[in-house]
Amino acid sequence: MSASYKKFNSDDLAELRKICSPDRVIPGAEVSEDFCHDELSGTFHRPDVLIKVASAEEVSAIMKYASKNRIPVTPRGQGTGLVGGSVALFGGIMIDLSGMNRFLELDQENMTLTLEPGVLLMEISKFVEEHNLFYPPDPGEKTATIGGNINTNAGGMRAVKYGVTRDYVRGLEVVLADGSIIEIGGKVVKNSSGYSLKDLIVGSEGTLGIVTKAILRLLPLPKFKLSLLVPFPDLSSAIKAVPAVIRANSVPTAVEFMEREVILAAEQFLGRKFPDNSSDAYLLLTFDAAGKEELDLAYHAAAHTCLEAGALDVFISNTTERNESIWSARGAFLEAIKASTTEMDECDVVVPRLHVAEFVLFSHSLQKKYGARIRSFGHAGDGNLHIYVLRDELKEEEWKKTLNAVFNELYAKAKTLGGKVSGEHGIGIAKRPFLAESLSPREDELLSGIKQIFDPLNILNPSKVVGTK
Amino acid sequence: MSASYKKFNSDDLAELRKICSPDRVIPGAEVSEDFCHDELSGTFHRPDVLIKVASAEEVSAIMKYASKNRIPVTPRGQGTGLVGGSVALFGGIMIDLSGMNRFLELDQENMTLTLEPGVLLMEISKFVEEHNLFYPPDPGEKTATIGGNINTNAGGMRAVKYGVTRDYVRGLEVVLADGSIIEIGGKVVKNSSGYSLKDLIVGSEGTLGIVTKAILRLLPLPKFKLSLLVPFPDLSSAIKAVPAVIRANSVPTAVEFMEREVILAAEQFLGRKFPDNSSDAYLLLTFDAAGKEELDLAYHAAAHTCLEAGALDVFISNTTERNESIWSARGAFLEAIKASTTEMDECDVVVPRLHVAEFVLFSHSLQKKYGARIRSFGHAGDGNLHIYVLRDELKEEEWKKTLNAVFNELYAKAKTLGGKVSGEHGIGIAKRPFLAESLSPREDELLSGIKQIFDPLNILNPSKVVGTK
Repeated sequence: MSASYKKFNSDDLAELRKICSPDRVIPGAEVSEDFCHDELSGTFHRPDVLIKVASAEEVSAIMKYASKNRIPVTPRGQGTGLVGGSVALFGGIMIDLSGMNRFLELDQENMTLTLEPGVLLMEISKFVEEHNLFYPPDPGEKTATIGGNINTNAGGMRAVKYGVTRDYVRGLEVVLADGSIIEIGGKVVKNSSGYSLKDLIVGSEGTLGIVTKAILRLLPLPKFKLSLLVPFPDLSSAIKAVPAVIRANSVPTAVEFMEREVILAAEQFLGRKFPDNSSDAYLLLTFDAAGKEELDLAYHAAAHTCLEAGALDVFISNTTERNESIWSARGAFLEAIKASTTEMDECDVVVPRLHVAEFVLFSHSLQKKYGARIRSFGHAGDGNLHIYVLRDELKEEEWKKTLNAVFNELYAKAKTLGGKVSGEHGIGIAKRPFLAESLSPREDELLSGIKQIFDPLNILNPSKVVGTK
Repeated sequence: MSASYKKFNSDDLAELRKICSPDRVIPGAEVSEDFCHDELSGTFHRPDVLIKVASAEEVSAIMKYASKNRIPVTPRGQGTGLVGGSVALFGGIMIDLSGMNRFLELDQENMTLTLEPGVLLMEISKFVEEHNLFYPPDPGEKTATIGGNINTNAGGMRAVKYGVTRDYVRGLEVVLADGSIIEIGGKVVKNSSGYSLKDLIVGSEGTLGIVTKAILRLLPLPKFKLSLLVPFPDLSSAIKAVPAVIRANSVPTAVEFMEREVILAAEQFLGRKFPDNSSDAYLLLTFDAAGKEELDLAYHAAAHTCLEAGALDVFISNTTERNESIWSARGAFLEAIKASTTEMDECDVVVPRLHVAEFVLFSHSLQKKYGARIRSFGHAGDGNLHIYVLRDELKEEEWKKTLNAVFNELYAKAKTLGGKVSGEHGIGIAKRPFLAESLSPREDELLSGIKQIFDPLNILNPSKVVGTK
């Protein structure tokens, strides 16, 4: 069906240069390769034109032109995705939203932040924390845009206590496929006024509309924080401790698991030591609280629970130095694994937290079965795993065969455990076959039907998430 | 378009009695009047048949029959709604889900509760609290079913700290209009696997599907609780204190406002005294915490903030007796106001919390302008107001005219303040014109398009929420 798109030509370029100033409308041949791929998916496509937009009105005018002429449009933030969601699969127009990066309003009384989609995650925390406020979602990739986070319903480490991006999106301005602009949600805390379009846009990866403004919910900034690094003799005993830790009185902010081999990779990658690497498996727990005693109560209970569950020790991390050494390692896991091999791909399943150990041990068994290196880390507290299959020296054909076989096993296993294809990275191009496989035919029809309602010409980020085109 | 529905006859009754045992398939003429209306909307319609279902499979078989024969279907829980959502506007089949009221699984490790839609809200809290767990949503109507709560995205008093029903629905089993059964979401904490059908069903008032099972998220039960009753010289100063209270370190669980005249009505209705009725306006704050010191820190800070903002006093309520006298009064507000007049209707708008005082004072001004009694109470912390227009001795025609004029003013005002038509009671029949008025044409098209995808024959709770039929 891609043949049915209009072939982009110089007339289109000229028309688009009437909408945005010509220096911001870059012909395909001049587009940097950076815009032709994302961070992992291995998909490479060049857009016919890259437009660096400055306003919702420009996005609207572009969408009107694109729908009139049936040109595919791919919205893009910083391109830090891992599943090809921001790659221009059919060429056409790429809308670069990274220049729309202004903070529009910090409303301290309603505790909301209104901003443009191109603002980076790391800029948000810096900005609001200066005002004693807190934006809880904390995905590892701090240079991602908030627009990208909203479009993948990004999760991050603090989901255990605070939930995911969806829970902090109060309102959105969205440009639809036909160029109309809608405002959904708002600064209100509750809403029972018709179907939640806002919640449909969150996690839709630019296939239903383009987010041009967001209103985020903020919390008071917790004053006290602390991490515990807890070594265990093996992964199973580490993961088994997790439900009891979460059942304790104060839910931890984050519960990450890490295995020694990933820590070693991070040490090598960063050229600095982790506080401890003598054990096979670790839990990294963090706590935050409004008061010192609340924090102490929480972490004492958790430490006690871990020791009862077989922990070898509990390292308290409450100095800047130690926090830095732990968190810089945790932050480098993805890059460290990537640097240790020639190519890799990722499985971002989420399973009920009770099944995390079973799932990771299953991935270990695949390592033996298929003779491929498989590395993992992830969010033990919320059941979201990042499992990496590494190519190393495998030849192209063998790599594809192995990857496919391992992925099929992983996604099938996740399904039997009541899990889902993606916890936080989204579906994009790369995970679409696995999503399709996991859905019932009726669910698939509903998703495709919704896409059809929002984008009848299928010009908005086509062949991502849903549809078989 | 209602004429296009099949006229229900004795053959249909006989066929439906093959699906469910005949004693649970009650012909319209024998249906109790209780099933012909809800608690407030003033809409009265008799279904052609009432079916007391026992399983998703029965609901599925009924929907298959209904879609084959184009018979409208109205799902119903306890009928405690206020906007006509559970009234069989076009007759047809009413599916009574109140008998599907079993707890199916308490999963302590994943901290989820799986249950049928007919379980009552008050039964949930009782059940989970025995296991030291906590289901935070706390709407005033404790005899409502969880199915009804999910369908209206019910909010309640604890939304300030804990959010609304949507935030606690992890997974749903839903019977669609064509009788197919889908399972959406699950026990997982994160999810970025395609458009969130779960979030589309939440708040859809039975117009997109019938919820037959839900998986709810639970939290650890906070061990310590306390309420503060804070008198202020007037409503404005009371409401003005709210943002600062919420900005303090520990977000209160609830922040309710109440005016003296509503307290007096509750005293009269209950025949017992409120702890204090000497002031014009009150805030009722509640706090919960895992530790005693955390609780003390939170309420001391809030008390201090209130006194700085002009509070006349701060009454601490930490005894069962005092809590009982405050909360029984708060719980009786709706019934007390209802008992004080001949008829009434309600506006359940939500506005950004900063604008609560402005909105309530505006409603006072309408009282003078239209000469009708208007009473209100509500959730100062989340901006959700319950404004009641009282008929008293007004004649039918005058009442309708007054009500309509007051409502038009209230909803228009809410819109200018960035508010929404319904915070937690839903749209049903009664608020549909006001929802339609508040939406842009494009939003309206999207909502109707979604309805069309889920229910192409328009048999599922027709003419509720969306559509113009």
